Formats: sequence, C-alpha cells, structure tokens
Amino acid sequence: MNRGTLYIVTAPSGCGKGTILENAADKHGLVYSVSATTRHPRAGEIDGVHYFFKSREEFEKMIKDDGFLEYAEYCGNLYGTPRAAVEKLLDEGKDVLLEIEVQGAMNIMDKLPQAATVFILPPSIKELRRRLLKRATEMPEVVEQRVKQAICEIPFAKYFDFVIINDDIDNAIRDFDACIAAAKHLRKCRGKDIDNKITEVLKNE
Amino acid sequence: MNRGTLYIVTAPSGCGKGTILENAADKHGLVYSVSATTRHPRAGEIDGVHYFFKSREEFEKMIKDDGFLEYAEYCGNLYGTPRAAVEKLLDEGKDVLLEIEVQGAMNIMDKLPQAATVFILPPSIKELRRRLLKRATEMPEVVEQRVKQAICEIPFAKYFDFVIINDDIDNAIRDFDACIAAAKHLRKCRGKDIDNKITEVLKNE
Repeated sequence: MNRGTLYIVTAPSGCGKGTILENAADKHGLVYSVSATTRHPRAGEIDGVHYFFKSREEFEKMIKDDGFLEYAEYCGNLYGTPRAAVEKLLDEGKDVLLEIEVQGAMNIMDKLPQAATVFILPPSIKELRRRLLKRATEMPEVVEQRVKQAICEIPFAKYFDFVIINDDIDNAIRDFDACIAAAKHLRKCRGKDIDNKITEVLKNE
Repeated sequence: MNRGTLYIVTAPSGCGKGTILENAADKHGLVYSVSATTRHPRAGEIDGVHYFFKSREEFEKMIKDDGFLEYAEYCGNLYGTPRAAVEKLLDEGKDVLLEIEVQGAMNIMDKLPQAATVFILPPSIKELRRRLLKRATEMPEVVEQRVKQAICEIPFAKYFDFVIINDDIDNAIRDFDACIAAAKHLRKCRGKDIDNKITEVLKNE
C-alpha cells in the first residue's frame, strides 16, 4: 500500500483556513490529525475524535518519550501533536491534514520533510481586519492583537511549498484542491518513494 | 502584470508527452517555446511558428552572445532554445511550455530555477517497448535503442518537481492539469515574487 501524504496547513487567524480545510477533508477524504491536550473535555467532545484527553502526567511522560511532533502550552493547558497517531494514519495509506498555527508549522516542518506544506494568506491586512471584525465574536482590542500577530506571521509564508491567497473563498478552495491533486506528484512527497518507483519502472524489461 | 510560469517538461521517447502537452496547451492556453534550428524548413513549416530558421552563421553568433538556454547538434544540424523569445513570452504574462529531451532539461534546469519541472514516466519498460513497437514507424532495432536510452534517462526523474506516471493517458492528463494548476502556488515559481507579494499583503494596513 502507498503511504499517505501529510499536509501541514497554516495561516494567520481569520484567513479562512477552517472553511478551506473542511471542504478539502470532505471532498478528498483527508483525515484530520487529532491533537492531545491536558484540558478537560467540553460537553459533546469525544476522546480520540476531538482530542486525545490526557492527564498532565500522561502528557509529560509522552513529552519525555519524544511522543510529540510538537507541543505547546496555552492558558495553563498543554496541547500537542502525537507522533504515533499521525504515523499510523500515513502507514494505513490515509492522507492526513495537520492544521496548526504558524509557529507550530515552522517547528514541525523540519521533522517531516516528506510533508506538503501550505500557507494561506489574506489578500491584505485591511481585509483581514475587516473579516475579523465581521465575526463579531471578539473585542476590537483582541482583533487588533490578532492583526498584529498576522503581520508577524505572514513573512514565514516563503518557507512553504504552496502559498494560497484567500481573496475569494471559492477560488481559494479550488487552489487548495489543485495543490492536493499535485502534491502526490511532488518530488519531496515521493521522497523515499521515488527511488523505489524508478526501480519498479525499470524492472522486468 | 504577473510574469508567466515556465514549464520544463521531459520524458523518454514513447511516454506520451506529446499528447499530454497538446492537451494542456489547448486547455490552459500554454504557449510552446519555439526552437531555433539550422536545418532547412520542410514543406508547410513557418518561420517563428514551427522553428526559428537560422543560418549556421546566425546560430553560431547567437551561441557566442549567450543567446541560447541550451543547444545541441543532431545529424549535422544545430537546435537550440532562444533565451530572449522565452523571456519575452514570460514577461508578457504567458505560461510557456518547454518540451525538451531529458539531457537538455537537466542542462536547462539550473539556469531557470523559477521553472516548474515535470518528468513523465512510462508505467514499465515492458509497456514502453510495447507502445514504441505499436507505433510501427520504426524498425525494431531503433525501438531497442530508444528503450535503452529510456533506461538511462528514467533515473533523472528524481531531480524534477513533479513526476507523473503515464499508465493511462486520461489519468496522466488529469495529473498534468493538477500540476499546472498547483504550480502557480509553488514557492519556487513565486520565487522572486513572493517577497513582493508579502510586502503587498502587508502594506496599507
């Protein structure tokens, strides 16, 4: 069986990443990587589906055992990407979506050289601010904080395989579809594979 | 205007490259790069369309002036890819197809780091031989010679951005479509561009 492709996808907050990825997951049967966390489950959250819920002790043991591709602490809770779960899905031939914030993506990229990496940009900071304010779920001060963070994050786009500008959600979805379709043929995704593939083409002449 | 994307596409003889590229040119409005040659025009061939027809003196002057991205001599005639013609098309925002044999592609890749490069593989050597024999335009000895050359060329596939296996022409056409659609978002294609693009996104906040 062919090993699946791992997609590391990131974007500043408010760039429409969630919508683009939900669409891609539905349409192409991509599987989300499930994070582990030490925070308590909220109503309706299922262990192994929304998160792997861990005690602080379990989580810290996993850190010691190098069990995370990356992890970070937010608001007193630990969050991380369990290495074994991602590897298992890939070995089963599944294509895996790793949706992660920019710094996490930068940290994880070096450890996963076979992954296809995608950065989603807003068309402009002005438009990003407009979208964040339109959500109306956050105070204007929080929006300004997110805008500032986006300004710091956007220059990292140049380290990613693919860069998509979400100026129009339908276009961005199509752009992402194209990257997914092409990633199977990307040399780096074929990485370890390509030598085997060449051997296979050449055998039994 | 955005600069066009250059596609360098190669394959061993008999891999279906011609069919795939004609389809892509039609469907996506890609423009073929026109080669220069010192051979005499055949009936119906138009200067500037099929080839740029040059005298040996003109051709050699262009070589001296570094006017070719690559050139080679076959059967006493010189063939080359004129640099200025390709650059002009790209500057006009056109996407350009450079269809070239494997060694030429290897030579040209370093000079054109912004190009998206594609290698088309046969599913197997056995199948490649079958396809070449089916053409029936060539003697079996010539077919064996082409097969031997393919065996030498196939290992170079690993240096290309995208590798497509033409096991089924409709699939291969779809694969090539996907690579073309995604190449616009490839970091390397955006190369010089991406810093400008980031600056543009960040300005006028």
